[in-house]
Amino acid sequence: MPDLTLTHGDVEAAAGRVLGRVRPVAVSPLDPSAPGEPSRIWLALEYMQHTGSFKARGAVNFLRAHQEGGTLPEAGVTIASGGNAGLAMAWAARAMGVRATVFLPASAPGVKVARLKGYEASVRLVEGEYADAAEACAQYAGRTGALPGHAYDDPFVAAGAGTLLEELRTRIPGLDTVVVAVGGGGLFAGVATAAHHHGIRTVAVEPENSRALNAALLAGGPVDVTVDSIAADALGARRASGTAVEVALRTGSRSVLVPDSAIAAARQTLWDQRRIVTELSGATALAALPLAGTGGGGYEPGPGEKVAVVLCGANTDPSDLIAGAGPGAV
Amino acid sequence: MPDLTLTHGDVEAAAGRVLGRVRPVAVSPLDPSAPGEPSRIWLALEYMQHTGSFKARGAVNFLRAHQEGGTLPEAGVTIASGGNAGLAMAWAARAMGVRATVFLPASAPGVKVARLKGYEASVRLVEGEYADAAEACAQYAGRTGALPGHAYDDPFVAAGAGTLLEELRTRIPGLDTVVVAVGGGGLFAGVATAAHHHGIRTVAVEPENSRALNAALLAGGPVDVTVDSIAADALGARRASGTAVEVALRTGSRSVLVPDSAIAAARQTLWDQRRIVTELSGATALAALPLAGTGGGGYEPGPGEKVAVVLCGANTDPSDLIAGAGPGAV
Ligand SMILES: Cc1ncc(COP(=O)(O)O)c(C=O)c1O
Ligand SMILES: Cc1ncc(COP(=O)(O)O)c(C=O)c1O
Repeated sequence: MPDLTLTHGDVEAAAGRVLGRVRPVAVSPLDPSAPGEPSRIWLALEYMQHTGSFKARGAVNFLRAHQEGGTLPEAGVTIASGGNAGLAMAWAARAMGVRATVFLPASAPGVKVARLKGYEASVRLVEGEYADAAEACAQYAGRTGALPGHAYDDPFVAAGAGTLLEELRTRIPGLDTVVVAVGGGGLFAGVATAAHHHGIRTVAVEPENSRALNAALLAGGPVDVTVDSIAADALGARRASGTAVEVALRTGSRSVLVPDSAIAAARQTLWDQRRIVTELSGATALAALPLAGTGGGGYEPGPGEKVAVVLCGANTDPSDLIAGAGPGAV
Repeated sequence: MPDLTLTHGDVEAAAGRVLGRVRPVAVSPLDPSAPGEPSRIWLALEYMQHTGSFKARGAVNFLRAHQEGGTLPEAGVTIASGGNAGLAMAWAARAMGVRATVFLPASAPGVKVARLKGYEASVRLVEGEYADAAEACAQYAGRTGALPGHAYDDPFVAAGAGTLLEELRTRIPGLDTVVVAVGGGGLFAGVATAAHHHGIRTVAVEPENSRALNAALLAGGPVDVTVDSIAADALGARRASGTAVEVALRTGSRSVLVPDSAIAAARQTLWDQRRIVTELSGATALAALPLAGTGGGGYEPGPGEKVAVVLCGANTDPSDLIAGAGPGAV
């Protein structure tokens, strides 16, 4: 049984490693409920991060921790991901002069391959599905000694993501609550570990039909779920990490489910009202708040509660958004 | 000869009027030139403002100042603009329960009409061009007593825009320089007036072929210029305001011209590297800085100089942007 416990010390060590290498998060308050009232809800603009998602934090921490520990082999790092984790690992590896070998199914869109090559990753296309690419990646690691990376189920990846919370609490004095989207739970595990240390509550948001963490909390441990959500490309993990489940139980974090319609509405509202573009997963945390026009909800902040909502990624094609100017306000 | 002098007191009064009614600007540093170096250049994310541009500041100040002064008539406000000034005026009027009548050429795109109606403005379509709409607007004001609004050549509109600078200097301690785009010069006049008071330099950026302020500075006063730029919809004023010219001369502000190609590249780079969407005018200030991949330049900050670059609008169709991830960095 591996030690699943992630500590605040892990996040502090990560903060030292990522400092100056990732972009500090900017925050922007939502409009107060009435003129003159203070703002209570902040958007954390983490989608402006290197490679367009928070995954850059985990990737830098993962590679630097292994470098420090002398466990970063000559063969570099390898991962099976055409999504944000793969992009972030390729980017972080290039920044550190480390080789990155990324496995993808041969059917992966050309734009993903091109982006990875833009970060100078060596891309290997494998016949079949993601499972086949993952298998080929594992074989490659075994054969060459390359370090296998994981998108979320790794303590350095999770601790790296947790550095976001450390920045948020200095940006927003008196922060009570942080709201994050959950796929496999790397972002959640890191953020909730750091948040709990500071007495801050974490709300974990998943699509109704992609609820790996929610199901695990009901079952008392990781279980497989069926995935069917418009945000599945980033949030579609079939099983939450053991660490995420352990952290959720230990910290008493709140699990909230949102319908796909609220996720799509939150993404559109961000554009209409703030000219912010996110991917669907990047708008999922916002969908948990009861805002005008989103049909979302599930987490209702108490009076005076200070809440940070993490907008965690923007690797999206924005062409379905049009220059709107609806009457509501985010 | 009207009194063209805009004072810091005008901007301070405006700051009091817009407080709690406009969104405070968020800032995000560009990446330092090397890990561990401090950031020297900040992006001011003013495109997240109500109605998608800084114009909301001037519109609120204009209406509130006239309300306070008892010069806001029953017939409300009227303006000829389907662009950002019209949108902002319609929005501010609705927020204050004031009637807004907006004149547009009948050929104006339906989306502009729809947005104005979304803010409950009464829209009047006029056969002909913008000049005809402006003429009809002036006649309407004369007939009904409605207060005529102007997009930039008004002291309250300019002073309202200047409130942005007051926020920037509290966000960025030790700020040396602010860089803004110029159309008719309302944004510039307000910002430069406030900046000069605090010992901060202002850089005024115009497209090469839409240089009303630059030409006025050469001529010693406002002159008509020919306008031919991809950013003309927002920056295409044929004549700079007398106030803007007076402020530029008095404050010794720097005038910089940028080619259209650098404006387009700056807009694309913002998306590729930061997932920020702006309209072309909103990226024009950035085009004046010598950044990788933009082919821009014209203003080279000195060593250690702290610079804020104002991204001032995002009323754009983002569909020509694709999810890029080029190798450069903004
Ligand atoms: C934008 C974005 N948000 C959220 C997630 C979910 O992160 P995690 O798997 O760590 O829960 C991902 C994962 O790819 C992502 O890319
Ligand atoms: C986004 C944007 N930027 C800049 C300008 C230019 O402002 P000004 O006319 O005050 O110089 C405008 C004017 O419409 C605008 O909408």
